[in-house]
Amino acid sequence: MGRAFQKQMHEMVRNVQDQICEGLSAIEDRPFREDTWTREAGGGGVSRVIQHGSVFEKAGVNVSAVMGELPESALKAMGGGQEYKGDDRRFFATGVSLVLHPNNPMAPTVHANYRYFEMGDGEQPGSWWFGGGSDLTPSYLFEDDAVHFHGTIKSVCDRHDLAFYPRFKAWCDSYFHIPHRGEHRGLGGLFFDNLNDRSRDLLFAFSKDCAGSFLESYLPILERRRNMPFNKQHKSWQAIRRGRYVEFNLVYDRGTVFGLKTGGRIESILMSLPVHAQWEYCHEVLPGSEEARILAALKTPRDWV
Amino acid sequence: MGRAFQKQMHEMVRNVQDQICEGLSAIEDRPFREDTWTREAGGGGVSRVIQHGSVFEKAGVNVSAVMGELPESALKAMGGGQEYKGDDRRFFATGVSLVLHPNNPMAPTVHANYRYFEMGDGEQPGSWWFGGGSDLTPSYLFEDDAVHFHGTIKSVCDRHDLAFYPRFKAWCDSYFHIPHRGEHRGLGGLFFDNLNDRSRDLLFAFSKDCAGSFLESYLPILERRRNMPFNKQHKSWQAIRRGRYVEFNLVYDRGTVFGLKTGGRIESILMSLPVHAQWEYCHEVLPGSEEARILAALKTPRDWV
Repeated sequence: MGRAFQKQMHEMVRNVQDQICEGLSAIEDRPFREDTWTREAGGGGVSRVIQHGSVFEKAGVNVSAVMGELPESALKAMGGGQEYKGDDRRFFATGVSLVLHPNNPMAPTVHANYRYFEMGDGEQPGSWWFGGGSDLTPSYLFEDDAVHFHGTIKSVCDRHDLAFYPRFKAWCDSYFHIPHRGEHRGLGGLFFDNLNDRSRDLLFAFSKDCAGSFLESYLPILERRRNMPFNKQHKSWQAIRRGRYVEFNLVYDRGTVFGLKTGGRIESILMSLPVHAQWEYCHEVLPGSEEARILAALKTPRDWV
Repeated sequence: MGRAFQKQMHEMVRNVQDQICEGLSAIEDRPFREDTWTREAGGGGVSRVIQHGSVFEKAGVNVSAVMGELPESALKAMGGGQEYKGDDRRFFATGVSLVLHPNNPMAPTVHANYRYFEMGDGEQPGSWWFGGGSDLTPSYLFEDDAVHFHGTIKSVCDRHDLAFYPRFKAWCDSYFHIPHRGEHRGLGGLFFDNLNDRSRDLLFAFSKDCAGSFLESYLPILERRRNMPFNKQHKSWQAIRRGRYVEFNLVYDRGTVFGLKTGGRIESILMSLPVHAQWEYCHEVLPGSEEARILAALKTPRDWV
């Protein structure tokens, strides 16, 4: 049973990678570069990246499926939906992860990730769980974009469980938070981790549906923004916001820090970082400016739908 | 006794700040911006920063003196020279910290920091210690620069204890290491922490001498490099190296991570980050290039003097 489900989940994330890369390729002037890697202790992955493209400064869509023996320290660091009591430390993990950083500062950065984790034979209580989500990080505030993004996500959630959207929207706001800045990374979306309080079939169907509607949640926004006029000041503000993105990912993001410290494929982990980031000492925005508008939205999460 | 020494150390770091800022101002076309801040729970500091200058992209020279009650968690995280056994959790900490990021990619980034920490009345075993050091981070390798920097530092060390240079040079190489890149942050220098295995007077005199010779260790290098010709490729490589600087500081640097997570003055802590940083997916250097030369030196520390 475990093995068959692992295969099903791995196929799903590979199909999602294909579908998303195909959708993005249609608007880019260059193909994705593809790197296949293997992990010495078991498994591997495929990273697809566009860099310095016509639309994307950097766009990465990665899948991986890794397995082996998990060190106890890693197991503890990882948690689990309920605490896993078994002593079988074989593990299996597969997922798809993407980060898109467009060139145009009016077009938002977006992140999505859907993953499944299993310990032992995957049959003990607490021995499997799902994680994932998708969130939008604009440099400038277009309320329509946030409404469309959250609206799409909410529709998907509501098809599976009416409790999902409010729960995972709030979880997203609390996870993508930069305490030392008193800001959220972006305008939120969906986030869940260690999830196993529904059946595996239901959570699989939900994850598949979320991942499958990623393009619908993001492409209309990108289409509206990617050719908007901008100037040097807009680019500089975008680079400052991307500096905050770097701060979140390197200081707080569980997957990034865990990956860096336990020897994942570095280039796949750090594809989430933008090409350009900027830090200005004591940067301040002008009251009433467009920069002040997005900052206010990042400081206090809103209900968008 | 404790109080008198605290005052002496605080005066020393303020004098060093004045001396270094005066030396740097002589070659810059703009004055340092000065921000004085106070800490609600006790103490404060003075940050001096030049940004977008003629010589420096960013140059920050900060002092602080903070005191109060240390939470037990912070005490544990901090360590101490020997483990502090007292239950008096009053603390005092003062230091000077600087990071200089020049514009010219041939001119190296440099960092220096000298600090003193005390618990309780500062009289119990393990209740006080010194930390500090200085290290050089070039984007391009000029062996003369490394020899001058290490040579100056070694002379200072040798005036106090012949064991210091080899010990603190090795400590620096092991501390400023980025395990996930298999690289060191720079070409090293001096690093020590939790130091109290000599008398307080000797370690004060040593710290003062190190801090007082910072300009001598760095200015001749800056003078040689700050007007060298360079092109866009050199700037891009500099920004990539500065991305690695950001990775080290945000993921591994004890002071930065501790400061961010315990509520220090964010802008003073993050003044160490460069204005511009860059991340290129799977960046590779050409064999035999200048970029390959510095990378080789960053992978394997050398003895420079």
